[in-house]
Order: sequence, then structure tokens, then C-alpha cells
Amino acid sequence: MRKGLFVSMEGPDSSGKSTQIQLLRRHLERKGLDAIALREPGGTAIGERIRAIVLDNAHPEMDYLTEAMLYAASRAQMVSQLILPALAAGKTVICDRFVDSSIAYQGGGRRLGEIVDKINAYAVRDCMPDVTFLLKVEPEMAKDRRVLRENDRIESENFAYHKRVCEAFLALEKKYPRRIVGIDGTLSVEEIGAMIAERVDALLGARDASL
Amino acid sequence: MRKGLFVSMEGPDSSGKSTQIQLLRRHLERKGLDAIALREPGGTAIGERIRAIVLDNAHPEMDYLTEAMLYAASRAQMVSQLILPALAAGKTVICDRFVDSSIAYQGGGRRLGEIVDKINAYAVRDCMPDVTFLLKVEPEMAKDRRVLRENDRIESENFAYHKRVCEAFLALEKKYPRRIVGIDGTLSVEEIGAMIAERVDALLGARDASL
Repeated sequence: MRKGLFVSMEGPDSSGKSTQIQLLRRHLERKGLDAIALREPGGTAIGERIRAIVLDNAHPEMDYLTEAMLYAASRAQMVSQLILPALAAGKTVICDRFVDSSIAYQGGGRRLGEIVDKINAYAVRDCMPDVTFLLKVEPEMAKDRRVLRENDRIESENFAYHKRVCEAFLALEKKYPRRIVGIDGTLSVEEIGAMIAERVDALLGARDASL
Repeated sequence: MRKGLFVSMEGPDSSGKSTQIQLLRRHLERKGLDAIALREPGGTAIGERIRAIVLDNAHPEMDYLTEAMLYAASRAQMVSQLILPALAAGKTVICDRFVDSSIAYQGGGRRLGEIVDKINAYAVRDCMPDVTFLLKVEPEMAKDRRVLRENDRIESENFAYHKRVCEAFLALEKKYPRRIVGIDGTLSVEEIGAMIAERVDALLGARDASL
């Protein structure tokens, strides 16, 4: 039985996800609500070990399918070990990336296509987010932000790759208009935070009313 | 273009696979043939890091689906990085475990069923062994042999699990009678070695004739 709200935050690298997750978490805490924030890949001890492999710059030889399966393995672990129990306990779960990232990065960026959807359908079973916030920034802007920091194996990919990732995110927004809320990532941190908080509050209200 | 012969060795833990792989390798070397032996999970730098996670006794919390996906990730890497190039170069590839082990251990032992077949179909694409030797021992005997050594996370599973693994291997033998050659694992090391060498020689001969 799923009582809690499941929120995922999506978008290209450097789109501002982490900041918005912190803001949402604080917003929920101020309301006295129990929330946990998780990151992908990782989130669990097993997932962090998988993360260390998949983001390691020392592995340029990694097969794209291996990469997709490692993300899915980490996700399966997080779903069963953390997300499902937290939702059953009525907590709000905020996930920094989830299935949509795999579809955008491995399906779109790596051009693996539909295989990624199918592998992930197995990985998450029926545990999909109630709402997904997609922070939309132009690939050019994400690139400028990336220049400012050390990049991992995925972030170091070329511009054409990151452009495909952005396009795949936009295609997902069109495909799942009820679940995915696209937000202009060039708005101010406060404006975006307010939009997210408002939507989450509405969903939590509707949920309380139905329980 | 696949010119080499692809052999996999399957069976429960302690069924004598490693010994037979050594014998087959020496047999091929004596004939002046180029052969490589690989182990699963592992075989590549990435695969060995995955192996370290999946067999670690420190992770009793590992979700069965995570386990199945980690094996598939390691396999995808080995197929693309080592097996396909070796077969294209005309080498014989001998694999200590392959897809059948996942179907037996995760599909049967963990009761995940058909999901495992499907995930692995993605992982190996069309790269299936030309011949698979299945060393058949009773679950009781495999258990006795396991008692004699330190066991990893999979080997430490209970007897009912290992019994399901053995049953799943027998079901695979029935399902793929052309590819899978079942061998009575209670025969002597030399007898088994001779049977395997004979079959491999025949397949290599047929292959040479058709090239």
C-alpha cells in the first residue's frame, strides 16, 4: 500500500536539480512532513558501489548496454530497499533522477532506444513517480555550467550527446504530460521553487483528502 | 563475422567446471589453436568490479532483480569487449558460466522466472554459445563439495535454493537439446574431458570445412 508521495527531479546536468531538491525538502520539513531525498545512481550501499563504477573516468571502454544495466541495477535496489518502504510508511520521497534520466541519457544520448524503457520497466516494476519536475535548460547553457567543474564519465561526453539527452527529455515531457511538469530552468531559483512547492502541496492535499 | 567457436561450461557450484575448462584449454593448445578462457561474472576490469559487489557476503540486502541486472551488465561488457572480437579473430572462446547460469540461479534459484531470459536477451544480443557443456551433479553432492571451502554470497544460499538451480539447469538441457550437452558429473575427470574434447573437435572440424 502506497501512502506517500513520490517526486522525481529531472533535467540535464547542471540544470539546478540539487538546489530545487534542497528547497523542496526544507519546504516539506517546515510543514512538519517526513521526506527523504535520494540520488541516482546510488542511494543505497550497493547503489553507491555501482555509481563508483558507472561514473568512473577510468572506464572509457564501458559498453552502452552495460551502462544502462548498471543504472537499472542501482535503481532496482533503491526501489525495493528504500522507496517502496518509505512510501508505505507515508513519507514523501524526492529522487534526484529516476527512470526518465536513463531513457534520456542511455536511450537518447547513447541511442539505445526502446531497450532502455524495457529494462527499466523490469527494474522499477510499478513504482513510478507521482510527479516528475523536468528542469529545462538549453544544451548550450548546461555546457557552460559544466565547464566550471570537474566532470565524471557521463558529463564529459561531447556536445552532440548532451543535445540528444535534452531532446529526449523534451520528448518524454510530451509523452507523459500528466506525470511530467516541464519548468523553464532559466527562471530564478525562487520562482522555480515556488512552482514546485505549489504543485507538491496540491498533490499532498489531494492525497490526504482521499485517504 | 563470427569465425571462432564459442563454448560455455555450465553446472552447479563445485561441479568441476574449472578443471574441465583447464583441460579443454590445454587440449586446444596442443592442437596449436588459439583459445581464451573467461569467467562470469567478471572477465573484464568492469566485470571484475561488478563481481566484487555481487558475490560480496556483506550485501545480504541485495534485491534479486539487482543481482540479475548486475550479472547481465557484466555479461554485456564481456560480450562486446572480449567475446565478439575474439570470435571475429577466429579464436575459440571458453566461458565459465554464461546466460544459462543466470536463468538457473536468478530465474530458478531466486524464482525471478522469465524476466531473467528477457534481460539477458538484451545483454548478449545474438551472441550465444555454439555449444554448452552442462556438468550434472546431484544437489546433495554439490553441497558436500561446498562444505569444504569458503563460500561467497551465492554459494552460501540454502539447500532448497541450490536444488531449484539444479532443476532449472535440467530444464534448460531439455529446452535446448541441440546446444546443451548434458554430462554426468560423477564420471571421472578424464572421461568427462575426453567427451568434451571430442565434441569440440567435431565442431571445429565442421567449422573449418564450411569456411
